[in-house]
Amino acid sequence: MTATTPTSAERPTPAAEPAAPDAPGAARRPGYRRLPVQQRREQLIAVALELFASRPPEEVSLDDVAEAAGASRPLVYRYFAGKQQLYEAALRSAAEELAGRFTVPPDGTPTEQLASVLDSYFAFVAEHHTGYGALLRGGSVVETARTGAIVDEVRRVALRRTVRHLGVRGEAGPRLTLLVRSWISVVEASALSWLDEGGQIEPTALRDWLIDQFVVMTAATAAHDPQTAGVLAALLELDPRAVALLRRLGS
Amino acid sequence: MTATTPTSAERPTPAAEPAAPDAPGAARRPGYRRLPVQQRREQLIAVALELFASRPPEEVSLDDVAEAAGASRPLVYRYFAGKQQLYEAALRSAAEELAGRFTVPPDGTPTEQLASVLDSYFAFVAEHHTGYGALLRGGSVVETARTGAIVDEVRRVALRRTVRHLGVRGEAGPRLTLLVRSWISVVEASALSWLDEGGQIEPTALRDWLIDQFVVMTAATAAHDPQTAGVLAALLELDPRAVALLRRLGS
Repeated sequence: MTATTPTSAERPTPAAEPAAPDAPGAARRPGYRRLPVQQRREQLIAVALELFASRPPEEVSLDDVAEAAGASRPLVYRYFAGKQQLYEAALRSAAEELAGRFTVPPDGTPTEQLASVLDSYFAFVAEHHTGYGALLRGGSVVETARTGAIVDEVRRVALRRTVRHLGVRGEAGPRLTLLVRSWISVVEASALSWLDEGGQIEPTALRDWLIDQFVVMTAATAAHDPQTAGVLAALLELDPRAVALLRRLGS
Repeated sequence: MTATTPTSAERPTPAAEPAAPDAPGAARRPGYRRLPVQQRREQLIAVALELFASRPPEEVSLDDVAEAAGASRPLVYRYFAGKQQLYEAALRSAAEELAGRFTVPPDGTPTEQLASVLDSYFAFVAEHHTGYGALLRGGSVVETARTGAIVDEVRRVALRRTVRHLGVRGEAGPRLTLLVRSWISVVEASALSWLDEGGQIEPTALRDWLIDQFVVMTAATAAHDPQTAGVLAALLELDPRAVALLRRLGS
């Protein structure tokens, strides 16, 4: 059991530890470093997410992940029982990252704040494009009830944050919930259209379109629901853009 | 090899033929009839669809289908290599039925016609509720790239029919396509909300809400797209309901 020290000139990694003793070819593979457990796990997930960004999950093997990470296949297996587990871990990591992006900036009108959240959503979609598209389109071999639950949880977070952003106190009723869920599905449909059609509509134009849709969908719902009417009234009081849009529609 | 004649009093089926000679227990099972190949296939699919309507696909076994169809397990296997094949055949049959419901009635204003299509869509969702919900929610064990393709084909038919219904000649551009795709995703989100929340909103109210959404989503898109502006102008010329809705929003 001899620990080999990698030549740091080849790929400088300050946190690198001696190569794993049970990896015989380690000395010959410059990227093959011994990393602390948590760091290695995160590295493998990051590498997997990068591969899933440009290839559908069914075309990414554990060998590909091992190679891209500069690690051996057995090492990857020490962290993940198989591709399914790696995919789920990667999805969970991406879902957490996405949910983190739903943070509304403190300043600006409600639609400006929504614009900022949508911009970071589209940046996320662009970073993870193939994997995100495969996930939303469904039917991938790596999808299970568990992956479905992860995606649903992101939608629930988006729903909760949007409702809170709208200043709703207490529970959102069925109409307001339907409205926000529906708008979130429009956001997803737009992301898919954008991925499918190679970006025929610019992300900024898409974002503006989505904000307009939010305003008019809310206005059309308000007529039949007092809670949504309250949300609309608050929006119109704070947001000249929303006021101008609705005036234009009526003229 | 003796053909047994079933006692027709027990379950009268005029098209029944003598029980399959290779089914030894046939005489003791009143529902076990020899049927022509195509008819048996359709019967098994119909029975499977009925089971999928109230139970998620993972909870329906080939044994359940055989029992409900009054057939033996080997007989079911003669038609379908396994549960996956049966599920796909059932999904294909349901998809054809659903696509057939997108037919627009010849009379009425555009929103009345849309209402009629939505009514038959919600009737379909009610008939197939659990299976439809499982399908839209995704992550079911029986989902594959093939089932995803069947669902996508239904969405494409819905998109094509809606665009044609709007009087568009030639290709729908990216904005109009985005609008219609998005509205279809709102229809699906509403169906899911309805299934999840045990019908807190009546289907007729949902249908009216969806029509309002269609009108305002189109109006908000028209400002940035000449093709959609043409669609909106034609709609407003024919449809007093759409005119009244937009006026209300602007006031």
